[in-house]
Amino acid sequence: MSHGDETTIDADEPLDVGMLGYRFMGKAHSNALARLPMFFPDAPEVRRHTLIGRDEDALAEAADRFGFERTSTDWREVVDEVDAFYNLGPNHLHVEPSKAALEAGTHVLCEKPLAPTLEGAGELRDAAAASDAVAGCAFNYRFVPAIRYAKRLIDDGSLGEIRHVSGRYYQDWLSDPEAPWAWRMDEELAGSGALGDVGAHTLDLIGFLVNDHTGGIERLSGHLTTFTEERPVPGGDERRPVTVDDAYSAQAEFENGAMGTFEASRVAEGHKNDHSIGIHGTDGSIRFSLERMNELEVMAGDARGYETVLVTDESDPYVEAWWPPGHVLGWEHTFVHENYEFLTAVAEGGEFSPSFGEAYEVQRLLDAVQRSDESGEWVEV
Amino acid sequence: MSHGDETTIDADEPLDVGMLGYRFMGKAHSNALARLPMFFPDAPEVRRHTLIGRDEDALAEAADRFGFERTSTDWREVVDEVDAFYNLGPNHLHVEPSKAALEAGTHVLCEKPLAPTLEGAGELRDAAAASDAVAGCAFNYRFVPAIRYAKRLIDDGSLGEIRHVSGRYYQDWLSDPEAPWAWRMDEELAGSGALGDVGAHTLDLIGFLVNDHTGGIERLSGHLTTFTEERPVPGGDERRPVTVDDAYSAQAEFENGAMGTFEASRVAEGHKNDHSIGIHGTDGSIRFSLERMNELEVMAGDARGYETVLVTDESDPYVEAWWPPGHVLGWEHTFVHENYEFLTAVAEGGEFSPSFGEAYEVQRLLDAVQRSDESGEWVEV
Amino acid sequence: MSHGDETTIDADEPLDVGMLGYRFMGKAHSNALARLPMFFPDAPEVRRHTLIGRDEDALAEAADRFGFERTSTDWREVVDEVDAFYNLGPNHLHVEPSKAALEAGTHVLCEKPLAPTLEGAGELRDAAAASDAVAGCAFNYRFVPAIRYAKRLIDDGSLGEIRHVSGRYYQDWLSDPEAPWAWRMDEELAGSGALGDVGAHTLDLIGFLVNDHTGGIERLSGHLTTFTEERPVPGGDERRPVTVDDAYSAQAEFENGAMGTFEASRVAEGHKNDHSIGIHGTDGSIRFSLERMNELEVMAGDARGYETVLVTDESDPYVEAWWPPGHVLGWEHTFVHENYEFLTAVAEGGEFSPSFGEAYEVQRLLDAVQRSDESGEWVEV
Amino acid sequence: MSHGDETTIDADEPLDVGMLGYRFMGKAHSNALARLPMFFPDAPEVRRHTLIGRDEDALAEAADRFGFERTSTDWREVVDEVDAFYNLGPNHLHVEPSKAALEAGTHVLCEKPLAPTLEGAGELRDAAAASDAVAGCAFNYRFVPAIRYAKRLIDDGSLGEIRHVSGRYYQDWLSDPEAPWAWRMDEELAGSGALGDVGAHTLDLIGFLVNDHTGGIERLSGHLTTFTEERPVPGGDERRPVTVDDAYSAQAEFENGAMGTFEASRVAEGHKNDHSIGIHGTDGSIRFSLERMNELEVMAGDARGYETVLVTDESDPYVEAWWPPGHVLGWEHTFVHENYEFLTAVAEGGEFSPSFGEAYEVQRLLDAVQRSDESGEWVEV
Repeated sequence: MSHGDETTIDADEPLDVGMLGYRFMGKAHSNALARLPMFFPDAPEVRRHTLIGRDEDALAEAADRFGFERTSTDWREVVDEVDAFYNLGPNHLHVEPSKAALEAGTHVLCEKPLAPTLEGAGELRDAAAASDAVAGCAFNYRFVPAIRYAKRLIDDGSLGEIRHVSGRYYQDWLSDPEAPWAWRMDEELAGSGALGDVGAHTLDLIGFLVNDHTGGIERLSGHLTTFTEERPVPGGDERRPVTVDDAYSAQAEFENGAMGTFEASRVAEGHKNDHSIGIHGTDGSIRFSLERMNELEVMAGDARGYETVLVTDESDPYVEAWWPPGHVLGWEHTFVHENYEFLTAVAEGGEFSPSFGEAYEVQRLLDAVQRSDESGEWVEV
Repeated sequence: MSHGDETTIDADEPLDVGMLGYRFMGKAHSNALARLPMFFPDAPEVRRHTLIGRDEDALAEAADRFGFERTSTDWREVVDEVDAFYNLGPNHLHVEPSKAALEAGTHVLCEKPLAPTLEGAGELRDAAAASDAVAGCAFNYRFVPAIRYAKRLIDDGSLGEIRHVSGRYYQDWLSDPEAPWAWRMDEELAGSGALGDVGAHTLDLIGFLVNDHTGGIERLSGHLTTFTEERPVPGGDERRPVTVDDAYSAQAEFENGAMGTFEASRVAEGHKNDHSIGIHGTDGSIRFSLERMNELEVMAGDARGYETVLVTDESDPYVEAWWPPGHVLGWEHTFVHENYEFLTAVAEGGEFSPSFGEAYEVQRLLDAVQRSDESGEWVEV
Repeated sequence: MSHGDETTIDADEPLDVGMLGYRFMGKAHSNALARLPMFFPDAPEVRRHTLIGRDEDALAEAADRFGFERTSTDWREVVDEVDAFYNLGPNHLHVEPSKAALEAGTHVLCEKPLAPTLEGAGELRDAAAASDAVAGCAFNYRFVPAIRYAKRLIDDGSLGEIRHVSGRYYQDWLSDPEAPWAWRMDEELAGSGALGDVGAHTLDLIGFLVNDHTGGIERLSGHLTTFTEERPVPGGDERRPVTVDDAYSAQAEFENGAMGTFEASRVAEGHKNDHSIGIHGTDGSIRFSLERMNELEVMAGDARGYETVLVTDESDPYVEAWWPPGHVLGWEHTFVHENYEFLTAVAEGGEFSPSFGEAYEVQRLLDAVQRSDESGEWVEV
Repeated sequence: MSHGDETTIDADEPLDVGMLGYRFMGKAHSNALARLPMFFPDAPEVRRHTLIGRDEDALAEAADRFGFERTSTDWREVVDEVDAFYNLGPNHLHVEPSKAALEAGTHVLCEKPLAPTLEGAGELRDAAAASDAVAGCAFNYRFVPAIRYAKRLIDDGSLGEIRHVSGRYYQDWLSDPEAPWAWRMDEELAGSGALGDVGAHTLDLIGFLVNDHTGGIERLSGHLTTFTEERPVPGGDERRPVTVDDAYSAQAEFENGAMGTFEASRVAEGHKNDHSIGIHGTDGSIRFSLERMNELEVMAGDARGYETVLVTDESDPYVEAWWPPGHVLGWEHTFVHENYEFLTAVAEGGEFSPSFGEAYEVQRLLDAVQRSDESGEWVEV
């Protein structure tokens, strides 16, 4: 559809999506867009309009595979040509294009973390506040049915007052010191390492689940470590320095007095994508592990132990759209749910959560961890 | 593409698929077809040609949603108009249309069990043998990466000589005696109950995994039970008899002396889709549970206990096409893999396994369980 | 205490226990006797009176270690000298000494299975019926707190009507074909193999848990297999035939229509002492595994999945005698509970369960499995 | 035996043990002493000489039950009358009696934590250094077979260089705000709360496992929280303030750069005695959970995931003394192993670990957590 600087959407026309990035996240979001019509028929119709990247050959191939009509090597040409701009580039490319899109009145879905720095994240938050467009940050784990179900339990008081919150995200792809250098290991390009890459997921998810009940994290103490100081650049003899953390830990105090402990690592041998959450209240507890994402462990009411709930019933969040009970979903389904919510917000002029404002709050936590690590002191958030 | 009675495929034209059935299995296979281009770009191109059913309104809506170009209420008009015929109808509709398709030289992918009776299955096996077309039976659990990985281990001898084989498929959707009557509870329409519906999956999977090493099941003793004798027909006061089993069990002896125990139930409270397999050999053991389908438990080599392997590495079967390690797949992915293999066989003139011949062997086991239940004696298979 | 042929006990004197057998079971029961005063102070006082065996040196050493005052190489001299006779010998020594003891009015605790044959078990049942003495069979797993807790749940109706019952007992100590021959592999001495040794535990436990609600097993079909036909005798070149089963399976129908599946093996690689029980009713299910014997998995009431209950609360069966919640018990504690119940029955003139009558019922099931295996047909129990 | 101020033991006489405390720990150690002869026949012979406490009636009853020959209400009279003094009193009674015993040349086994304060612990360390007596601190979890097995793996390099260490000890006995006040909630009597009571176990265990490979904790940042400020005193209307922590967390850096995260709580709803340890190195990882204390999860060598090892084989630490493979041990067995080691050291003039010196190092960590909590800064240990 043609598109001006207003955010009004013509309901008879499909939404045009421009997408920056065509690797891991590009594939995940393209797949989500492709799957919506069959499973969420009330989702707005979408045209995969333009795929944006630098390498023309790879881009052309990706566009063909992901179902995009056009390609572009310059996001500037795209951000005001489409209805929604998906910013799936490396972290250092989050700020400028997303801001430009918002200023053009184009809706934005930006990958996490919102920016490499708190300053950049602030710019985006402000740009979103100044725009009528929907500005969402793609913390996809909010869209796991089991997480939504956990939120229901917490919100209805099943856990009582929250006292302990923990989150650990273990991966091992950098366990080998000879694993190659990549942009995710560079402070300029990524902002931080395990902290911003996967720790951001933890901190967002925790906020999503308990902020309404705890008042959020008030102060924290953080710790960053880099085990391997430099890594080989693929295709040559060069070794480049690793300027971000391989792992972080943090302890926190919430406004209501609840305690939090957080940790992530890229060198935790034997763990591929092991994101675990635990929340303990005066009346109950829940545990979640991403590698068993269809399950939620629930201890509440008169229970004497954790109940392993397979969150695949029709009545569970998002599940009705898919398969009968016990027919499990996968990681990619979180993107379908996320895109459904984002596009619906775009089409109906509604809100999308997590917004840039919420993502900025996550960034404040990332920044606080870094500041605390530098000062060796607890910092107020 | 235009299509004659020979099975030659024009590689420049997409394969035309006609699909009988548009509910649960229709959705699963349509989704699989839709997803192939993005994830398996070397899969043959497919045109969702005609969707077949009886209720024209529902059919039209489904065709729109599933991406079919046309609809038909008569499979006879379709089976020789398409390159491949997907028979996803109730069991009593498996034989006649699949046979007609094969006789027309059309490739067939037929849902399991192959037929309501051994006689019907025999007709299909013979029709497949007489045809050059590919004739596959859609036992989708063969296409779980963890199951393929298990087969690798068994085939490379990691488990030694097989001694114990077990399979249990527990569901609970008929636990409530007032759960409504459906065709799956009628012997004429379904052939059998838990036995043919989910027990067939177990028996096929076991055969897939160990037949090469055990010589297959030589004799068995079976038991069928119906707990609820009649059930309410939706939308009225009628109650209709349940003429199939709610549950079966069987014990078996394999040609090499290995023992087998098998069981399925539709009334196992608390179990949604709990298909568990265990295989124990002289040198090791494996366990698999469908509700945690990304995992395989492996005890082999010097191990002292079961190792929980997350079968999501690039080197694992089918995984490279999807996401990085630890990003789990779901139930539906099995259909994508299955369709990929079937369509590739169609396009390249290859073999597809499980073939109608293999599915007939499963049917012989189903039949043997029923005969044994009637006679109270062990029966040779 | 001096002891005549009446069963009256002098409450001021300790109970004199004579014990036949001083290896595995001798150690387990001696330990139980030794621990009672500290943990169950209301248990009758016991004097470890005479330890009986054949090898005088080994016997003397064991008596010293197990706290027995005397030894004897002839059980005939002991059975009427003591208040209670513990028959912990090999199965073929169960009948004659236990019968003699009962005929002398001496209370008997006999290890399981009650006898190598149904005929022998019948003799013991009759002898017990004709005696005023307490005659108990040492199926110790009835005394696991989690099993008692399971029985509470079943008895209070938490599971509704029972429909599926399963039990599997996997060990692997005979996995190696060169594992040495022992009396447990000889039909004359043992009666049967995995069936009577560990399968008896399963069948007793199932009866304990569900017989009141199912009417017990009405008919069954059994299967026995021996994988290794002969084994080396330790300390020489001799190989002796294995004349019992390495593994059994059985399927059963209970009087109320419930289905049962049972299995045991001594060659299930990777399983040390893995006794698993599952019971599924119209309203709930439970699962138990001996290797995690402090836990019971419970699915009941409004639960959506299995709750992992740590059965270590003060209110749990037998637990108050021991440690605070979460301080787990071990395998041997089952013997302490069993001895507490047996000796209390002896001292107070009460009943002990499992009685010889109950153990005879288990033997009927063992016999039925063997008969069915021979005939290839279901047999009435 | 009569006993002067030298620590020489007469090997022909049993060791006389005096024990201060007759509740939870008194029962655990008395049981351990009682069980040694049957299971560890090479352990020194022990006479349970004198039980010490304040309440004469309760003391007399306990002495009778625990098998002590005498009682005393004054530890001063006992510490130089016995060969070994077991100090199982509340924390505030650890220093003076233990010191007096050491000064009298009496061997001491003192419960953990060594003292309520670092100062007190320093006195004990110094007293132990000045004495020839064995001075051990009863961190019993070092004597879990699975923990010893873990140490073997770590020591033989199976995990490579250690990078991540974590420990969490969750209980819920104070989850209820009306749970009664006890000495464990008073700073004067206990020193600290969850930190010293169970956190001390974690920190000792971690040190035991990894200090040789990491150089130990170099600096840490701690956090303490009290959720319930006062609690009812049993038997009246009084409420007394809670002056210790309900929960602590800490993050740490080891000398080799490894990261540590630690946490404990008495209000973690649903967790009874849930002590979990995780250690991750460059080549492998292990996980342990006290509520499944017979198991160790091991990821090492070529493994793709954690292997659940049942640490009950004859070749496993301490297991040969007990039962065959798969016959699990309980919590109390750790005390038997601990007493075996302590008494053997006493009898043979050897070393016992953990010594007072090692326990002092744990106390330095407890103190560092408290100091860090007060200052809000990382502290050097």
